[in-house]
Amino acid sequence: MSDVRTLALACRDAAPAIAALDSSAKAALLRGMAAALEAHCADVLAANARDMAQAAAKGVQGALLDRLRLDEARVAGIANALREVAGLPDPVGLVTRRETRPSGLMVERVRIPLGMVAMIYEARPNVTADAAALCLKAGNAVILRGGSEAIHSNTTIAAALHEALRAHDLPEAAVTLVEDLRRETMVELLQLTDIVDLAIPRGGEGLIRFVAEHARVPVIKHYKGVCHLYVDRAADFDLALNLLIDGKTSRPGVCNALETLLVHRDAATDFLPQAARALRERGVELRGDAASRALLPDMRAATDDDYAAEFLDLILAVRVVDSLEEAIAHIRRYGSDHTEVIATRDEAAARRFVQAIRSAVVMVNASSRFSDGGELGLGAEIGISTTRLHAYGPMGAESLTIERFVVRGEGQIRHVESRMR
Amino acid sequence: MSDVRTLALACRDAAPAIAALDSSAKAALLRGMAAALEAHCADVLAANARDMAQAAAKGVQGALLDRLRLDEARVAGIANALREVAGLPDPVGLVTRRETRPSGLMVERVRIPLGMVAMIYEARPNVTADAAALCLKAGNAVILRGGSEAIHSNTTIAAALHEALRAHDLPEAAVTLVEDLRRETMVELLQLTDIVDLAIPRGGEGLIRFVAEHARVPVIKHYKGVCHLYVDRAADFDLALNLLIDGKTSRPGVCNALETLLVHRDAATDFLPQAARALRERGVELRGDAASRALLPDMRAATDDDYAAEFLDLILAVRVVDSLEEAIAHIRRYGSDHTEVIATRDEAAARRFVQAIRSAVVMVNASSRFSDGGELGLGAEIGISTTRLHAYGPMGAESLTIERFVVRGEGQIRHVESRMR
Repeated sequence: MSDVRTLALACRDAAPAIAALDSSAKAALLRGMAAALEAHCADVLAANARDMAQAAAKGVQGALLDRLRLDEARVAGIANALREVAGLPDPVGLVTRRETRPSGLMVERVRIPLGMVAMIYEARPNVTADAAALCLKAGNAVILRGGSEAIHSNTTIAAALHEALRAHDLPEAAVTLVEDLRRETMVELLQLTDIVDLAIPRGGEGLIRFVAEHARVPVIKHYKGVCHLYVDRAADFDLALNLLIDGKTSRPGVCNALETLLVHRDAATDFLPQAARALRERGVELRGDAASRALLPDMRAATDDDYAAEFLDLILAVRVVDSLEEAIAHIRRYGSDHTEVIATRDEAAARRFVQAIRSAVVMVNASSRFSDGGELGLGAEIGISTTRLHAYGPMGAESLTIERFVVRGEGQIRHVESRMR
Repeated sequence: MSDVRTLALACRDAAPAIAALDSSAKAALLRGMAAALEAHCADVLAANARDMAQAAAKGVQGALLDRLRLDEARVAGIANALREVAGLPDPVGLVTRRETRPSGLMVERVRIPLGMVAMIYEARPNVTADAAALCLKAGNAVILRGGSEAIHSNTTIAAALHEALRAHDLPEAAVTLVEDLRRETMVELLQLTDIVDLAIPRGGEGLIRFVAEHARVPVIKHYKGVCHLYVDRAADFDLALNLLIDGKTSRPGVCNALETLLVHRDAATDFLPQAARALRERGVELRGDAASRALLPDMRAATDDDYAAEFLDLILAVRVVDSLEEAIAHIRRYGSDHTEVIATRDEAAARRFVQAIRSAVVMVNASSRFSDGGELGLGAEIGISTTRLHAYGPMGAESLTIERFVVRGEGQIRHVESRMR
């Protein structure tokens, strides 16, 4: 048997012990993990220093290097995130519906854990603790496969988590870190259909496409966020401008940042010039269609690729549309099903936009930057799904559970002929 | 472009028209389909006669031939099933949660259609209408790939459904029947990841494994139902015997029939002999472990394969267990995650069984034969999922939708620095 299969089997076999924990036991475990992480802060920082040195030697720099870096404050932040998850409501055991059937059967829908989750992720070492915490909160075992850049940090963080599992008489394998980081080992993990219930890739589009292509276990994917703001003819322009600036410039490198501005023709003459001025003051490059360039002649022409792009940078694609319907058609064609925003005072236009747009998050008069688990009330998120299956949009602990049926009777049978006399 | 890709694209492009229908328009469409089917009853029966003749010429007989057969009563039954779906509650637009966040944003979770569903099924022609009805009810377009034996029946039923779509000014492609039944065409359909949102195979285990192996689009699978009845030491024996007879003999060929009986050691001496007598009177063959054969010496020995088998026949595997925990361990090892039953008067034992068993349906003192969408309150079912993702257990129209986020604000932004002065 291969090593990763052995690891995965041990992880799966640890799942029932986690599933059997009640809410307070899970919360105590997560708080124990936070304390263990803080107690081992020096070890974690030493391991992280090795990762940083190796990354620097490989020429990694800038934002990438910063994502890898830990310091005391960041370790404390990871520990506090564990405590926050400890304090969230427990989704397991939640009775979502209850009905007595004509047969007299009492039918309940009750949330149970998925079983075992495989997390595949890249540089940030905090994911090791964050993902473990949400999986455990939902009663699951988890197998973690992080990036090679963070291997020493991840190993030390996992060791602290294991210490807490041991202290609570729970199997360490409930949080299993894969240390063999060869691609073929990851592929093997992603094809253990008899063991792994769900794979969640988290990282760049390349990683996610690789996982989607090679996995035979179910995968929840989030490819990219090409988020749109549509400024309706009936928009409040000041409000729309605030949404635009916030959406494009407050953190351009994240998936809920705006990438495309659509403006109704009747609004364009007034709105576009002031929007362009405000954006350019903040260093944003605009790329537009012919109609918007007629108003802003110094703007570069947008290509089809620009409208499909997740720039993750201070670049914005712009288009003037003749109608709300044309805006909807544009989003259907170029959107990524992540988050779209309409700015309007017209309630009918807002309703039509919400009805016609089938993205995971649709917003009326609010910034796309609110599209994350914390802001939308999930407490913490393990990822954002842009696949319309199981979960759609930000995923919290509840997305790591499933509803099943619990039926209670008093001897009911379906065919009366079956009854013994 | 291949033919099936062209068909699938047309089906997908028809989806927004279906998604935009309100509840009463969908109900009217489904009732129109029922009427069209009845109006074309003679055509359907003529087409079915061709299918029956071809199947008979190929040597098909017995239950298989009967599943293919239509008559006036069965066509009326299909039409009535369409009317029943018309009368079910509409899952689309359902607001499942609503919360005002500290930011002042009003966050709702609202059900929307999945988009486009591919149904892959075998002989029964009624699935053509049943599956179309549930997909449309949930606001989806559907592409149907039935079995070759039923191709004439399916084509004629689809033509009737198309007539109703036309009469309601809706695109026929919203219900698309694939008439090219080559396996490679099905494989191509199952790999259209940019078009198909979900594939649901319905039929024998061979078909389902083929779909699971070749699909690159998400698949909801139901492999088999190896359903267990555990008779606890604290069981009411008369009640348990009724559940056993009903579960094993009322319809042995279906997935919610019982396949294995587990009996607590303390109950075995009294329960097993009377159970064996009642079952054998009804033609059931028993296969047991050493402990049960000590009580029933003329019983054949059960193999490991017998405990894993979905007999779909009048055969029952039997095992005596030392404890509730041993019963749980047996089900974890051999179960198929479909439906398990405990017969007990001990509330603590029932709770432990429900907690430890992670099957889609778990029942206390009720027959496994109630494990279907109609009996559990879904109205109609499109399949039964034994995969813990998206849906688990019987799937109704709601399982063909997904919750997404609708957020309403009054200009909220995330970073106050973004606000224009």
